[in-house]
Amino acid sequence: MTDRYSMSIKRIAIQGERGAFSEVAARDMVPSRFRLKPCESFEDLFEMVKSGRADLGVIPIENSLIGTINLNADLLLAHDLKVIGETQRRVIHCLIAPKNVSIRQIKKIYSHPAALEQCRKFLKAHPSKQAIPYYDTAGAVKMLAASNPNDSAAIASPYAADCYGLNKLKRSIEDEKFNFTRFFLLSKRTIRFQGIAKTSIVFSLKNKPGALFKALSVFALRDIDLTKIESRPARTKAWQYNFFADIIGSPSEDRVKLALDHLGEITHFVRVLGCYPLKVKT
Amino acid sequence: MTDRYSMSIKRIAIQGERGAFSEVAARDMVPSRFRLKPCESFEDLFEMVKSGRADLGVIPIENSLIGTINLNADLLLAHDLKVIGETQRRVIHCLIAPKNVSIRQIKKIYSHPAALEQCRKFLKAHPSKQAIPYYDTAGAVKMLAASNPNDSAAIASPYAADCYGLNKLKRSIEDEKFNFTRFFLLSKRTIRFQGIAKTSIVFSLKNKPGALFKALSVFALRDIDLTKIESRPARTKAWQYNFFADIIGSPSEDRVKLALDHLGEITHFVRVLGCYPLKVKT
Repeated sequence: MTDRYSMSIKRIAIQGERGAFSEVAARDMVPSRFRLKPCESFEDLFEMVKSGRADLGVIPIENSLIGTINLNADLLLAHDLKVIGETQRRVIHCLIAPKNVSIRQIKKIYSHPAALEQCRKFLKAHPSKQAIPYYDTAGAVKMLAASNPNDSAAIASPYAADCYGLNKLKRSIEDEKFNFTRFFLLSKRTIRFQGIAKTSIVFSLKNKPGALFKALSVFALRDIDLTKIESRPARTKAWQYNFFADIIGSPSEDRVKLALDHLGEITHFVRVLGCYPLKVKT
Repeated sequence: MTDRYSMSIKRIAIQGERGAFSEVAARDMVPSRFRLKPCESFEDLFEMVKSGRADLGVIPIENSLIGTINLNADLLLAHDLKVIGETQRRVIHCLIAPKNVSIRQIKKIYSHPAALEQCRKFLKAHPSKQAIPYYDTAGAVKMLAASNPNDSAAIASPYAADCYGLNKLKRSIEDEKFNFTRFFLLSKRTIRFQGIAKTSIVFSLKNKPGALFKALSVFALRDIDLTKIESRPARTKAWQYNFFADIIGSPSEDRVKLALDHLGEITHFVRVLGCYPLKVKT
């Protein structure tokens, strides 16, 4: 990130407890020291940054297996925060237990339902251990650290184990090794930076034949590289879609500015969600 | 549907228990009498149609609030079944209890986590009633019908209440009234039909600038109406996408055939998932 974020200790909001993947993503994007502000929900996170109770927020925005994180795409649209950074992290799940607890002793495994789902093969291979849904992966590790049971484990990131001083009984128990999550860094203000820029936008089309083709032509005709496009149902009308797209370049460049003006001419709406240094190559 | 399906009693596989939304969707698409084959999972459903233990299958493919049903999009790609029909249904959730149980007596409400999530406002307004996750909405109604408790209810479709002879204590308790699910009818064989055709395809792009623009040009240059396009991460390589698209027309028409051939030239792969009578106007 730009050096503007190394001047003072920033407060960074994440959803979930300390030790979450979002905390590691925050370290990627903000190398200076920061104070973590765990939030219960993503709604709380957006409110916290908006109100100034946190300087920055970190959210997962898409995953290479499941696609766009719907809730966060909707929240980006509903709020006026700027995307000022991106990073990606491979999703690694570990079986984590209090020290001196062996894998054979474990009868219960706590984790978020999505993490349990991603470790289906491991759980199937251990039918005597009961999978128990918990509100948060790192939260499950925190709970074990507090209660110190000798028959329970959690599934969470290796960072969560380190964070709460628990043991990684088994590393990388996720079914799919090819599982990456991309994160956004959010702020109330835009930033200046050097290097290659990526810009995230969202637009919605007029319901006319060829509308998406015309929308994409504003970039293709100007040789602007579109690195991602994903459609999401608009919540306002059935079967209407918003398109979330990333382009290489910054609205401060003439050709990008002209392309976005052109896009505005032929769509219902266009919004720039943010412009930030390119980190995730797709 | 075509009259080919009224000649004999067809066996139709759905995921979940009798009384599920999929059963109602099946009635829309197959007006003749049929025998329902409830399946535990969507994987089972695909296998059942593939093996001939069912003649047809009904799956939800997208929802106007959440978008494509990821698992079913992946299963369509993994199997060689044909889409031969479509329909849409508004999602209506009811509070359902055994006869003579009043709303005040209810302490526990069972349903699928997604349905509980979609009735958040109702549950928040009744904090004394505990929401309990259950594997299936209609399955929760079936369970109440079998055990007949006087302190429990389920959240499920009105059809589930009728199907098991239980009482609809409150109708339409879902937060969002603007919630539609689109269903596909699957078969091993394609069908012939009259009227306007819709064709569902999936394709993946070469990773080159302007690739999606070029792909859409094969339709735009032939005035073929693209009614839907949605991208889904390909599970084979991070940040690669498959595009699920619907076009008006049939591959039996020359211009559609030529457009699909042209699309094949400039993409990694193209597959026709099926061609069926247009029913859902988007």
